[in-house]
Amino acid sequence: MLKDYLESVKKINPLIHNITNYVTVNDCANILLACGASPIMADDINEVEEITSICNGLNINIGTLNTRVIESMYKAGVQSNKLGHIVVLDPVGVGASSLRTSTANRLIKDIKFTVIRGNISEIKNLALENDTSITKGVDANILDTVTEENINEAVNLAKKFSEKTGAVIAITGAIDIIADSQKAYCIFNGNPMMSKVTGTGCQLSALITAYVSANPENPLEATVSAVCTMGVCGEKAYKLMDNNSGNSSYRNYIIDSVYNLTGEELDKMAKYKVY
Amino acid sequence: MLKDYLESVKKINPLIHNITNYVTVNDCANILLACGASPIMADDINEVEEITSICNGLNINIGTLNTRVIESMYKAGVQSNKLGHIVVLDPVGVGASSLRTSTANRLIKDIKFTVIRGNISEIKNLALENDTSITKGVDANILDTVTEENINEAVNLAKKFSEKTGAVIAITGAIDIIADSQKAYCIFNGNPMMSKVTGTGCQLSALITAYVSANPENPLEATVSAVCTMGVCGEKAYKLMDNNSGNSSYRNYIIDSVYNLTGEELDKMAKYKVY
Amino acid sequence: MLKDYLESVKKINPLIHNITNYVTVNDCANILLACGASPIMADDINEVEEITSICNGLNINIGTLNTRVIESMYKAGVQSNKLGHIVVLDPVGVGASSLRTSTANRLIKDIKFTVIRGNISEIKNLALENDTSITKGVDANILDTVTEENINEAVNLAKKFSEKTGAVIAITGAIDIIADSQKAYCIFNGNPMMSKVTGTGCQLSALITAYVSANPENPLEATVSAVCTMGVCGEKAYKLMDNNSGNSSYRNYIIDSVYNLTGEELDKMAKYKVY
Repeated sequence: MLKDYLESVKKINPLIHNITNYVTVNDCANILLACGASPIMADDINEVEEITSICNGLNINIGTLNTRVIESMYKAGVQSNKLGHIVVLDPVGVGASSLRTSTANRLIKDIKFTVIRGNISEIKNLALENDTSITKGVDANILDTVTEENINEAVNLAKKFSEKTGAVIAITGAIDIIADSQKAYCIFNGNPMMSKVTGTGCQLSALITAYVSANPENPLEATVSAVCTMGVCGEKAYKLMDNNSGNSSYRNYIIDSVYNLTGEELDKMAKYKVY
Repeated sequence: MLKDYLESVKKINPLIHNITNYVTVNDCANILLACGASPIMADDINEVEEITSICNGLNINIGTLNTRVIESMYKAGVQSNKLGHIVVLDPVGVGASSLRTSTANRLIKDIKFTVIRGNISEIKNLALENDTSITKGVDANILDTVTEENINEAVNLAKKFSEKTGAVIAITGAIDIIADSQKAYCIFNGNPMMSKVTGTGCQLSALITAYVSANPENPLEATVSAVCTMGVCGEKAYKLMDNNSGNSSYRNYIIDSVYNLTGEELDKMAKYKVY
Repeated sequence: MLKDYLESVKKINPLIHNITNYVTVNDCANILLACGASPIMADDINEVEEITSICNGLNINIGTLNTRVIESMYKAGVQSNKLGHIVVLDPVGVGASSLRTSTANRLIKDIKFTVIRGNISEIKNLALENDTSITKGVDANILDTVTEENINEAVNLAKKFSEKTGAVIAITGAIDIIADSQKAYCIFNGNPMMSKVTGTGCQLSALITAYVSANPENPLEATVSAVCTMGVCGEKAYKLMDNNSGNSSYRNYIIDSVYNLTGEELDKMAKYKVY
């Protein structure tokens, strides 16, 4: 099943507009090329509407937010909604500053997102009023970790937030939860070392935008396919490591693995349950 | 012949000022170091004139254009012209938005570029009035592809655009065309996988700036040498790939190959014809 | 001795706020993760105070300075001082433009830095009035090179500049000098090829911020430990090179080596003298 979504990306070659941070932008571009999509980055308010109009999907990432670009995100998102394009939000570090929190909330209020992807702390911050979890910078708070024990709680949170926003919610971490208001998938792929590479989350959001843009009729399963792709490639990349390899080589191996991943491998290696 | 230009770069170690996009800027810096040049990136309007004055050449790339930096490009270009420095333009994605189109046209109008490098869609957009080709984001439109059949048409386009601008015109793709108003070189090096790495075009523009800055008396042949360097290194890098390698490793291998390329290898592997 | 500082980083996992350039920012993030710290990048004036407040240390790097971000650097630095956090300055290219020179001097005047790290030309520019050394872009001027012969002169410069600023001064190059007003360490680790990778200096400043943030009671020795870490890893990475490797692979190997370095290796391979 998951392989169909991957193969659509390679067939359709969606063009993805990214308004994203300057830390991990190069990796986002290369992972989009790896999966069979094409990237374009553009953030000036005077061109984002035109650029997004020629694209298949829009990926908004607030990783290095600045005041100039907030208006561009807003304008591009509204235009994408008008055209019925896919729009993905990656609320990096929401909760770490009021600028990030207010921006993410405003974007969610005025733009209809197809998918919102974050770690558990970020999604809790957006989904719960009076949230007491404290974001540790751009990483999830250890107290929020999704485990086999509290997985139902996290699934319910995702379903309710999906109901509220109309977006597929992707909570990613050691266990990933992908949900719409009715149905949730829990994914058990990946490798702990992925957290030692900057921007694996950003890369995943770019990948999700490509997969959903190439499969717009099925955003939930396309997101599951993208998240499994990233997890499976994290596992495959880990097998390529030798004694001298570290997080920089691992970064390259993850993108290389996305480049080489076949639909058959994805279906064979994907580990998920429906909740 | 081509090796002399490569060797001048290593001897002279030109300092290259880059006003470029934040997607591929790190690769541009590393490829400049690989070929024997030194990079400096500076885009604030309050320092670009001073910075460009201490450099040998200026590389302007509009890949992630924003309003603030347009004025910096303009000011740096005018200052470089005053000092008789090399100035290269990479009009990334021109035609994809009116901001990019109007900016590139204004820059060409007011600044004398030594070299303008783009894909065929970008150069057609700049060279032809009432152009009907549609840029697909930052990649060339498939309809525009230069082939053995239409190569004379593309050569004529390049020569005429060179006559109009006074710049060496580099149209790069599967076949590369490098022309001034009188003479054109068609280059047959490279590997299709280069299009799966973000920014090989940007890297090439940086390389051209270095080669021409170290060989200012011969901009046409220095550009040919730089374009052959990139193509030959794309071929050498491809030979380093194994079954697990993908576009991220390939990116590293291209830059590594530039680092290790000797003048003799370049002369031996370069494939070009004069038109 | 040096291993204790490295091990503190891995135990404490300090969160480091970086206001840095867009050229080498991804490598700075990955080297911070490699050593056991966590990075966050944030440069908007509306969030830097909040972001820096949740961090353990702040790394300010002026590599691609722009007017918007200068005020953010200032505000974040003042807030960090209020909270007693570690603050490190990397005055990239100071002397290459009056914007960089005036900004660095203003930052030093109004913010108490824990460490200032630069190449010899940059530190001379800041330390000496009427300095006649000419910065070659972002690299040290060859005339300024620290050698066994003039090492005492450089040590005195560092000690005096430390006395004036209250900061640990790190002058890095073929020989590194790390000094407070009383004591200096000269470090003889590293490999000349490190200068062929863009941003090894930026990466080192990020590493220093992590080491000192995890060992705030001992900024001089923690800086020595970070500088030895970088030099030792430059040596280890060089041993991983084969005939086809170039500066791009070397970049990966350096970060990989930081990821894998043990305290025992650091203590065994570090080469330094006290002056």
